Amino acid sequence: MSPRALGGGGSATGSTALPPDPDRMVGAGGIVEVAALAGVSPATVSRALRGLPGVSASTRAAVRVAAEQLGYVASASASALARGRTSAVGVLAPWISRWFFAAVIEGAQELITSHGYDMLLYPLGANAGPDAGPVDARALHKRVDGVLGLNVPASMPTDSLRDLRVPLVTVGSTVPGLSGVQVDDVRIGLEATRHLLGLGHSRIGFLGLDPDDLYGFTVAADRHRGYVQALEQAGIEPDPRLTEVTGWAVQGGEAGLGHQLELAAAAGRTLPTAFVAVSDEVAMGALYAARCRGIRVPQDLSVIGVDDHDLSYLFDLTTVSQPVRRQGRLAAELLLEQMEGGAAARPRVVQIDPGLVVRSTTGPPRD
Amino acid sequence: MSPRALGGGGSATGSTALPPDPDRMVGAGGIVEVAALAGVSPATVSRALRGLPGVSASTRAAVRVAAEQLGYVASASASALARGRTSAVGVLAPWISRWFFAAVIEGAQELITSHGYDMLLYPLGANAGPDAGPVDARALHKRVDGVLGLNVPASMPTDSLRDLRVPLVTVGSTVPGLSGVQVDDVRIGLEATRHLLGLGHSRIGFLGLDPDDLYGFTVAADRHRGYVQALEQAGIEPDPRLTEVTGWAVQGGEAGLGHQLELAAAAGRTLPTAFVAVSDEVAMGALYAARCRGIRVPQDLSVIGVDDHDLSYLFDLTTVSQPVRRQGRLAAELLLEQMEGGAAARPRVVQIDPGLVVRSTTGPPRD
Repeated sequence: MSPRALGGGGSATGSTALPPDPDRMVGAGGIVEVAALAGVSPATVSRALRGLPGVSASTRAAVRVAAEQLGYVASASASALARGRTSAVGVLAPWISRWFFAAVIEGAQELITSHGYDMLLYPLGANAGPDAGPVDARALHKRVDGVLGLNVPASMPTDSLRDLRVPLVTVGSTVPGLSGVQVDDVRIGLEATRHLLGLGHSRIGFLGLDPDDLYGFTVAADRHRGYVQALEQAGIEPDPRLTEVTGWAVQGGEAGLGHQLELAAAAGRTLPTAFVAVSDEVAMGALYAARCRGIRVPQDLSVIGVDDHDLSYLFDLTTVSQPVRRQGRLAAELLLEQMEGGAAARPRVVQIDPGLVVRSTTGPPRD
Repeated sequence: MSPRALGGGGSATGSTALPPDPDRMVGAGGIVEVAALAGVSPATVSRALRGLPGVSASTRAAVRVAAEQLGYVASASASALARGRTSAVGVLAPWISRWFFAAVIEGAQELITSHGYDMLLYPLGANAGPDAGPVDARALHKRVDGVLGLNVPASMPTDSLRDLRVPLVTVGSTVPGLSGVQVDDVRIGLEATRHLLGLGHSRIGFLGLDPDDLYGFTVAADRHRGYVQALEQAGIEPDPRLTEVTGWAVQGGEAGLGHQLELAAAAGRTLPTAFVAVSDEVAMGALYAARCRGIRVPQDLSVIGVDDHDLSYLFDLTTVSQPVRRQGRLAAELLLEQMEGGAAARPRVVQIDPGLVVRSTTGPPRD
């Protein structure tokens, strides 16, 4: 840390009620010199160097040149202390190499960074290290001005998320009283199953309960509930033996279909004619398992997924789509509203409609 | 911001040479009370709440309960000011929804978070907003203690990365004088092409030059160089008409193969019997284009990719593999070494060997 930044931080000491001016905080002499050299106000220097909007490209360039000449760099920590703000947004996500989460983050990123916030990534998944488990809200507190929670587990809010005392917006699950972007997962299960029923299928399996009750995710259970409802509405008794616990990965779908084949063979019955998969990745695994065994899709077996993953068209996969990057962008909008609107911004939940993308992994059953 | 944190920040003012004790900084009264209540030292409280190793689970739990009872939360900003450290690592990555980058980040995450650092994500790609382009090192400076640069463009270092004045470790490209994890991309192109030559192919195309010269990435160009070298070593004159600019996405591979078919038809010649694709995603797109046109793989056309993407086995894709998550972990190790080892830690480059995974999208040429 440079003496200048320390001095800047120190100048906050006397302040109690009103936070001091951040532009005076960050090496006061420095920013005034930069402003004078660039021919703009210190506030403009601050905005320009923090990447905030409302500064023209030419002014931004002039400020950068001046700052460079004078060796002036704003200190984020001093600035955060001064403003009681961190200029950062935390993102809680289970696994970023799962396409859904990466695409949501990508969707949110443009808006968040263009408003001058950094994005901090907090893993919740298996790779979160020895201290994993539900994230420690205490660590987040005072590090971020707001949080985007992707598939925030139902078990977390009461434990720790409410302790954050910063705005939290959820994607993929909602928490009462908080803003969120939601897709109705029961409806997703219903729509997927109805598509298969409409093609004439009656023996329909479900690949996709989530074994990971560590976090209490409800997405898979909700989609399964929709599947059960659609069958019951069609007068079909759901057969629990046709439901597999797969988790979310391709390998789970592959193993799930394999297990269904074993069960059917052991019981001397045929495989269901169709499966609802909880995600496109699970569907891809099931398609692979079918292909390895010479089971023709859709002649012998129909498979429908959920997501419309970027790669799904390569598999000709029929799927219930959800506009994933748009969910990320909407969540970022809601979060900025909460962070910058103060008490006036009341929490709201935006519901996104799923769609149906019919490709060629579904067709009428063989009879 | 709480008055306690402000007061804590202020107590740094008098300090000049030696940084003050961070545990005294962060609301000095508070941490001592927490320590007394938990029956441990203030240093242990600090370690426990920051998630650092060396604290038993039971002690950590006791500290958390005590902190909760006293409403004590460490302020990251005050702590950073005090120590001249941010406890954060910045990650520069072009697109996180591209599997390679997500997998590298996932590989690095466990080690970084288990050492008590947050991970800040800085996008470099098309989604980086209106102020995009090479990232502004000035914004990173004082926000992070170190940087992981994934495919840092060759054009960036001289511009701005050296200004960071924090350790930088690169993955996928190297910068002279900096630590990095590197795969020899020329060798990757060589190995892929030699595999096809070994099967008897002589008319081999390349799908994958990168149009994105905005950032000056060299990965695609290096792989192409390996392809050219392998052909020349086999006594085959490379035909520039057989190289396509595809970028990195599936759609580029699909369009690239389509364009090769058009060129061949217009010139009254046949398609090359094999293609090297710059990535598995590009290869997947080419396989899709072939399938849509009834071109059989590998009978009519062989395709080899690069990466060993999580989904590649679903396409039976032959590929030059690189251990992507391991690259992330190694890069995290190098970065921690630099950040925590001080001047004693000299930069080093770790070279990772690519492998060859033969599946069934490659075979001998027809006739």
